[in-house]
This record gives sequence, structure tokens and C-alpha cells, in this order.
Amino acid sequence: MFNEKKYDKLFDLMNENTLDAIMIAPSSDMEFLVDYHAHADERLNCLVLLADKRYFQISPLLNYEEAKVKYPDNAVFYKWADGDGFLETVKKSFTDFGLIGKKIGVNETIRAIDVLDFQELLDATFVNAHPMMEQYRIIKSNEEIAFMKRAGEIADKVMTEIKYFIKPGLYEYEVIEEIKRLYKENGADDISFSPIVATGRNSSMPHYNAGTSKIEVGDNVVVDCGCRYNNMCSDTSRTFFVGEPSEEQRRVYEICKRSTFSAQESALKGVTAGSIDKVARDIIVDEGYGDCFLNRTGHGIGFSVHEAPYIKPNSTLVLEEGMAFSIEPGIYIAGKFGMRVENIVVIENGKGVSMNNSPVAIEDVIIKL
Amino acid sequence: MFNEKKYDKLFDLMNENTLDAIMIAPSSDMEFLVDYHAHADERLNCLVLLADKRYFQISPLLNYEEAKVKYPDNAVFYKWADGDGFLETVKKSFTDFGLIGKKIGVNETIRAIDVLDFQELLDATFVNAHPMMEQYRIIKSNEEIAFMKRAGEIADKVMTEIKYFIKPGLYEYEVIEEIKRLYKENGADDISFSPIVATGRNSSMPHYNAGTSKIEVGDNVVVDCGCRYNNMCSDTSRTFFVGEPSEEQRRVYEICKRSTFSAQESALKGVTAGSIDKVARDIIVDEGYGDCFLNRTGHGIGFSVHEAPYIKPNSTLVLEEGMAFSIEPGIYIAGKFGMRVENIVVIENGKGVSMNNSPVAIEDVIIKL
Repeated sequence: MFNEKKYDKLFDLMNENTLDAIMIAPSSDMEFLVDYHAHADERLNCLVLLADKRYFQISPLLNYEEAKVKYPDNAVFYKWADGDGFLETVKKSFTDFGLIGKKIGVNETIRAIDVLDFQELLDATFVNAHPMMEQYRIIKSNEEIAFMKRAGEIADKVMTEIKYFIKPGLYEYEVIEEIKRLYKENGADDISFSPIVATGRNSSMPHYNAGTSKIEVGDNVVVDCGCRYNNMCSDTSRTFFVGEPSEEQRRVYEICKRSTFSAQESALKGVTAGSIDKVARDIIVDEGYGDCFLNRTGHGIGFSVHEAPYIKPNSTLVLEEGMAFSIEPGIYIAGKFGMRVENIVVIENGKGVSMNNSPVAIEDVIIKL
Repeated sequence: MFNEKKYDKLFDLMNENTLDAIMIAPSSDMEFLVDYHAHADERLNCLVLLADKRYFQISPLLNYEEAKVKYPDNAVFYKWADGDGFLETVKKSFTDFGLIGKKIGVNETIRAIDVLDFQELLDATFVNAHPMMEQYRIIKSNEEIAFMKRAGEIADKVMTEIKYFIKPGLYEYEVIEEIKRLYKENGADDISFSPIVATGRNSSMPHYNAGTSKIEVGDNVVVDCGCRYNNMCSDTSRTFFVGEPSEEQRRVYEICKRSTFSAQESALKGVTAGSIDKVARDIIVDEGYGDCFLNRTGHGIGFSVHEAPYIKPNSTLVLEEGMAFSIEPGIYIAGKFGMRVENIVVIENGKGVSMNNSPVAIEDVIIKL
């Protein structure tokens, strides 16, 4: 439900950024602001929130019934029909609300093709408002943290249980289906993203999502998954070994683990995100695998599964109480294997507290055959 | 795999549209062009195809391994690391390939926030290339049509079988799970979109997707689902009645059915998309339900589930041999119920041929209790 009281900080940010309005398409932003989980398609369906606290919704006719219950009865709706398209409706709404000639922020799900059409149609300046929207949610409330901890506990339970399901001969997608079932069984509201299960060579691709390979003896299997609990997300990764790991697999696993936990310990209130990345990265570089650490050390998480703060090289963002983010350094050796150990950390009482605690000792991640 | 031979028509269209290049982010466009099913996230991962037939891929470091196998060995990659961001990489690639000062089309999945940043960073004109990308795929080949027919047969089989699963007391999401299972069992490669199961009042929202209501006696249940077979999509809807329908339900159902089948018969080579919409709409308007027909009559379908041609009021697009699209007029009475009967039609030998043939007679869609 539209809730102006929740938006004080957002209005402040809009003023700081000299934005006259923001356009919010279906996304975690829209879900956060009005609890409206809209199906995103090619039809423009968006909330326009003005810095002066007025607002309106541009709605395809076929979404009006579901949208209107998310707003007060007197909310202004600009409905448009498939036969007419939405461009003239956007123009009319902008004219009615005095937005011609003004500075309009767009959120991350507004499509470029639409803004390019708006730029042709309208005299208004459109700017990237995504960093501002991220800033708006970067500090989690105590209640949000409590829900994230519960989401993390459920993820840990699933991760602990999935170990006993994985065995040679299963396809990756079968493990994915079981993960989804376990989340449901353990009380998650939903999964927070499509689980990644990558076995053998596939594990060297951090975002591998095909799910079509069979698990074989000697593989290591990266499992990366999470859930939602009261809207808040979890996200955790573990690497399992199907039978006894090789010398190299053991060595790489221990480096990954040490990198994750060292970075976790370095996550304190007042340090920069870049310094945490450096702790994680230096360990991997010193061991000679620097070229195999392909990504940032972590991403913020909360209402959405990827948001600020990003834990990446050279970031000068200073960690504050209530920020939550992943620590997930990894070593990805193309054509061979990849590994990571991922926990979500929240800054509480000045320190990084892990929300994930499923076993990581090597004997605990070896699947006995 | 990148396949220049497939792109002749696209290069022609780029020249017609005076585009110097197009940027293609993860989407059905990218899947169609290079068979690369990339996980879309906040990282810019895009193919840039120039009108002079050169091309390069801007790739996050962590997607490089999966992306490079989709291109010839000598393909140019601009890799970027999380710590650096992608803006400077875009600038360098545009400079290297002489795209500064040029006209660049973007596909539908390029984000506005990125193009707004490019506009600040670069001297180049960005334009909406989505209509052109749709034009590129609007005529289906005989092989594509054969795959779509098979996808339609599978969808019909699932629709016929799901009738015997639906019963009072089931949650909508349980029906959704069974639909997914049936598609797998019947040989679909995948579902083409998340199935819609809307019972009772929920059925009045054409894109209802919550799945949380229980089916009750007297409800009508709209089921809307489809699959992929060799990359090509199907999409069909049926309305089922849980026990004997009321007088009003029967009347509305017969109007919807008549609207669908009349529009289907009017779908001939050489007529406009708008005229088909008019046939469907006039029937519903004449019966007094015009305000309850909330959407267009249909959308094109093929490699993606929504694409051109759109069957909507006033469209002057002329139907040609090999175009395929849905016919799905509906009556949606807010707070009460909604119904539709949806078939995919392809223009073959000048006539609209239905790819969906599951039963629609009222006695065949009544679930006996």
C-alpha cells in the first residue's frame, strides 16, 4: 500500500539530488514503495512520485484493478488502452502535473527504448536515479534485519539438507528442484532468485544457470541460493565435493574459505567497502589465483537480492551500522572448476555479523559415496 | 553461436533505419542472434553489431567464459571488471570502432539508466531499435512454424489433462506446479512463461499472478500457459468451470468463445491487425461488455512469447504469410470474474490456421464434481 510516511528519506534524497520527480516501473523499488508486485511486460506501468509529495500512477487498463488497491481511493490514475499506446498518456500526465521542463529520475527497470521515446516527445530532462534509490534502502531497520536473519537461517537449513540429496548421476536441475522444495518446506515465502547449481567444469562460471549437466564423482558442486522471508532476502553459497577432493581442489577450497572469513572479520563500521574487497582479494592474489577471481567480493542485500553497498575494489563507501552485504570471493579456473563460500554479513554494534552459519569445514562439505 | 548468415535481413533493416550499430542486451534478441541465454543483472553484457557487419561483445569478466563459446575465436571482446564498472569500457569500444558521433539503436532490454549515463559520457545518438528488432522476426520460416505447431500440440495436451486435476480445495499454485510438471512430462523444452491460474474473482485480472487463492465450487478458472519447443513458443488459454456454471457465466463464456473464433476466421493474409481486433471487439461491445474487454485482442509470438504483430485497435499493420499471433479477447468483470479463450493463429496459404485445438465446448470445460 502507498505509504507516504515511509517516504520521508526518499523526499529528502530527491531534494538533495534536485529531482522534481521519479518514475518507478515494476521492480523491487515498486514493491518496496507500494507493495505492488506487478508483472513486468512491454506495457508502461509506473508510479510517478513528485518531490512535492504528489504522485500518480500510469497504468495499463488491464492492470488497473490490481494496482488501484495499492493506493488511497483518491489516487490519480492515468489509464491507457492497448490500442492507444502510452506515449500520449505520459505527455498528458506530465503536463497536468507541471513536469514539462523538469528533471525526472528513472529507476533501474524503466526501459531505455521508452525513455528515448519520452525524450523525443517531451521537454524534460531524464536522469539515472538508481544510485539514489539504492541509497534510500541501504541502512536496514532492526525489523528488516530480524527478517533477514530468519531468511538466512532457512537458507542454512536448506544448504545443510541439500548435501544429503546431492549424489552422482543426478542432473543439476534435479538438485535445483529439491532446493526449491526444501525452501517451501522450511517456511520461506519464496526463493529470492533462481538457485544456481553448477557441477564440475560448470562451476567455473559464477552465474552458470543451464542446469543440464549430470553430477559425477570427483566434481565439486557450487550451490548458490536464498529465499525471502517477510520480503527480506537471504543468499548463501557453499561448495560441496562429490567424493574425496583432489589435492588441488582442497587447496583452492581452503583459500576461498580463508578469503571469505578474513574479509568477514575485516567488515567493521567505519571501514571502506574497498578495504574489505582488498582483504579478500589479497589472499587469492598471494596464492597465485588473482586472475581467477572474476568478480567483486560482494553485493548489498535486503529487500532485493542485489543492491548497495557493493564490496568492490577501490570503493570508498564507508560501512555503517545496519548495512548488509554478501562476502563471496571465489576462484574460477576456466575449463576446470570454480569455488566460493558465501555468507551475508550485517554491521551490528560496529561489527560484521554473519547471517549464514551452515558448515564449511572440508569434512562437512565432502559428500561420502 | 554468432551466425552472420542469419543477419542479412537485419543488416538491411539497419541500413533502412540509418542505424550505425545496435546494442543488444540479454533478451530473446540475444538468444535469437547468438543463442546466448545470459542471466540479466545490473552488469552490462551486450552485443554491439555494426551496420558494416563488424561486431564486438562488451562482457563482464565473470560472464566471459560462457559468452566466448558463442562467438568465433577471433571475436573482439571488451571485458570489464566489477571494480572498474563498464562506462569507460563502453567509451573505449565506441572509440575503437568509430561509433562516436554515430546513431546507435538499443534493444528493449537495455536499461534507461545506462543509456542516460552513455548520453552524458559519449557523443552518440541513441534511438529505440525495438520496432526494427520486431520487424526482423515477424515472418516465421516453415521450420519455425513446424516447431511452434509442436509447442502448440504440447500445450493442448497439457490443457486437456489439467482439467482432470483442477478441483475445489486446491490452491492456484498447486495447479501451476502440476502444469509445469505436465509440460516436462509431455516433452516441452521449457515453459514459455510462468503459467497463470486465476480462480473466482482473481480471474477478472488478465495478468493475475499471485497463485494464493483456493479453488471453490462455482468458480471459473482461467488457465493461461505455454511452452518452448526448439526455441519456439506456444501460448493458450482456456476457462474451466468448477461445477455447473451460472446463467451469467455461461452467457459470458459463449460471448468470449464466439469473439475468439470469429476473429480467428477473419485473420486472412492482406487484412489489417486492426480489423481482426474490430471483429473480436465488436462482438463483445454489442453484447454490452465493451468496458470489460481491457486489452488488445492479441500479440505476436515466435521465438519470444510477446512480439509483433500486435492485434490491437486501429493497427494498420497488414497480415502476411508466416505471421503468427494470439487471438485472446476477454471479458473481465472487476470483483466478479473474467474469462478468455486463447488460440495462436498462423497465416498459412492466406488463411489463419489455429495452432491450438483443445476442447472449448461448454460441456468440455465444465469440471464435474
